[in-house]
Amino acid sequence: MKKFLLIPDSYKGTMSSQEICRIMSEVIHQYIPEAEIISIPVADGGEGSVDSFLEAMPGEKVYAQVKGPYMEDMYSFYGVINNGKTAVIEMAACAGLPLVGEDKQPDKTTTYGVGELIAHALKRGCSEIILGIGGSATNDLGAGCAAALGIRFLRKDGTSFIPVGGTLGEVFRIDASRINPLLKKAKLLTMYDIDNPLYGEDGAAFVYAPQKGADAQMVRFLDQQLRLCSEIIKRDLKKDIAQVPGAGAAGGMGGGMIAFLDSELKRGIDTVLDAVGFEKLLDGVDCVLTGEGKMDSQSLRGKVVIGVARRCKGKGIPVIAVVGDIDHGIEQAYLEGVSAVFSTNQKAVPFNEAKKSCKADLKSTVTNIVRLITTLVP
Amino acid sequence: MKKFLLIPDSYKGTMSSQEICRIMSEVIHQYIPEAEIISIPVADGGEGSVDSFLEAMPGEKVYAQVKGPYMEDMYSFYGVINNGKTAVIEMAACAGLPLVGEDKQPDKTTTYGVGELIAHALKRGCSEIILGIGGSATNDLGAGCAAALGIRFLRKDGTSFIPVGGTLGEVFRIDASRINPLLKKAKLLTMYDIDNPLYGEDGAAFVYAPQKGADAQMVRFLDQQLRLCSEIIKRDLKKDIAQVPGAGAAGGMGGGMIAFLDSELKRGIDTVLDAVGFEKLLDGVDCVLTGEGKMDSQSLRGKVVIGVARRCKGKGIPVIAVVGDIDHGIEQAYLEGVSAVFSTNQKAVPFNEAKKSCKADLKSTVTNIVRLITTLVP
Repeated sequence: MKKFLLIPDSYKGTMSSQEICRIMSEVIHQYIPEAEIISIPVADGGEGSVDSFLEAMPGEKVYAQVKGPYMEDMYSFYGVINNGKTAVIEMAACAGLPLVGEDKQPDKTTTYGVGELIAHALKRGCSEIILGIGGSATNDLGAGCAAALGIRFLRKDGTSFIPVGGTLGEVFRIDASRINPLLKKAKLLTMYDIDNPLYGEDGAAFVYAPQKGADAQMVRFLDQQLRLCSEIIKRDLKKDIAQVPGAGAAGGMGGGMIAFLDSELKRGIDTVLDAVGFEKLLDGVDCVLTGEGKMDSQSLRGKVVIGVARRCKGKGIPVIAVVGDIDHGIEQAYLEGVSAVFSTNQKAVPFNEAKKSCKADLKSTVTNIVRLITTLVP
Repeated sequence: MKKFLLIPDSYKGTMSSQEICRIMSEVIHQYIPEAEIISIPVADGGEGSVDSFLEAMPGEKVYAQVKGPYMEDMYSFYGVINNGKTAVIEMAACAGLPLVGEDKQPDKTTTYGVGELIAHALKRGCSEIILGIGGSATNDLGAGCAAALGIRFLRKDGTSFIPVGGTLGEVFRIDASRINPLLKKAKLLTMYDIDNPLYGEDGAAFVYAPQKGADAQMVRFLDQQLRLCSEIIKRDLKKDIAQVPGAGAAGGMGGGMIAFLDSELKRGIDTVLDAVGFEKLLDGVDCVLTGEGKMDSQSLRGKVVIGVARRCKGKGIPVIAVVGDIDHGIEQAYLEGVSAVFSTNQKAVPFNEAKKSCKADLKSTVTNIVRLITTLVP
């Protein structure tokens, strides 16, 4: 056992994937000083995704002045990898919830700056854009982002405007003829991690707008605005995005990227695995360590551990998952290629208690896994 | 990986060592149908110890009529192993707490029946007696047991009697001259699992009499009785047992067996390992699975996992401990020969919750250990 590949998701509420990689590395090097370790902290599209990519592969961070959630000027950033070919953008960097502080108004916030970041990257020569969506303060269906890239939203009176969550219903016509020409030659990939449809009870407004500041009345209003605009999209752009899984991610950003910018919508873990060239990285790897906050039936629908396991399956490389909680009934995971799953829980205590020692617990769990490995395969 | 040796302690409050062995066996056979498995469910000296021995090695169960805790007639039992050479007796079988029900009076209960069981085994030809102490309803310093084997306890007026917890102070002289002659030719081993001295704040009465029904006043009285009798022992038998670790086990039974019957006092796990011929059983074993309810600093003082690890050390056999809770600061265990420790906790929930799924959790943990083993060492 010489070459390890670490590819954990974050443990929501306790540790980032970067921290997890660092702890795993430290333990492995303690027992196998000569170990070669590849760390790929998994980005889920939300805040920190750019840093995750830049930690996993060579690249640089580019800064640009764009519009913030309330059209204010701000400095934001994105990452450039693959020798300048690919840009990694997280929408949270200019439309994220932490940026608005207590002033949460999902009917007024915009994703305009995200479109500006994309335009900036295209102008810089990037031919592939990976857009991470998540952690947003917006519910604008990505219309702001689209507007910044040349999509025109017209009122009944023929005037153009930049719709926000509360004015999507005013859109009477959508004109895509003046779209940024660089975008046509580029590939836009939107990475998402939640399955919600655009509207309805499981939609963007009902499920996520409350945490963005909407009360019950506003939730219904925002939901209706999404419905109205999606009808215009259907008519003018010939795209029916209402039920696409992930269309409701990030205030409709998932659906908007498909509708307005012809983006491909792709699961976070698959986006990461493709971006880093996972299959190639596996060359010579003796053991893969992955993990996520909770392993449950949801995991089997394609979260990080299963996503990784599927790509390793049949290659004879052990895939060990280190997770927070393990639900019963995860046997399916074994069939998907997971060799073994270990929980970081070291004591029978509730989460609030366990949380306090999460780093020590992870370290202890990985220590015992590595000790077992080195005992069995000296 | 073909040959496994299972030697877990019980998980106090959730599973017996027999149950743990069965679950471990089941999982191993599921993944390695041709596996050869040796199961040694560890007895701690308390209730179930005889069955544990009989599960680990060939032998038979012998039944005998003896006196119960209140001198009532009852049927009790012991085990015979090593081709009739060794008897395994658990004092709980005729002086155990469950036998008295709600009628808990540690000042009145006797271990007389235990002495009768020993006499029965000696008469049957056993030359070695392993006496498990624990789970007792008594606080009689083992005087009842000794009396049944010929030790005479005399009052000031010269009359002999069988002291109980509340009358130990009446002992004026001890006469060992009429001890059962068969005992002199036999070897008596008392196995204990707790370190307490005979009396004082950490002694038998203060620490354990309350659970046997003593109130605060009776605790002080019983403690004083133990002190008084130990002075007579010192004078008449020339033995100072007061501070011997384990003398306070089982209402002073530990100390009494040394004082009255010249017993050796031996830790539970070492007694078991010697009785089963552990070193010989290790021949050809590829992996040892052990465990206990909680791995903490106490464990390092010689509980089951460390006891097992010490005997395996230097033999190149992986020793994997599957335990309930793991305390921080168990690194010393690695130095003692433990290869790896895994907790059965699968979720961050309190013990009352975790308890409900203890069997499924143990199965899941062992499953993942065995899966990792078979992946690494096909």
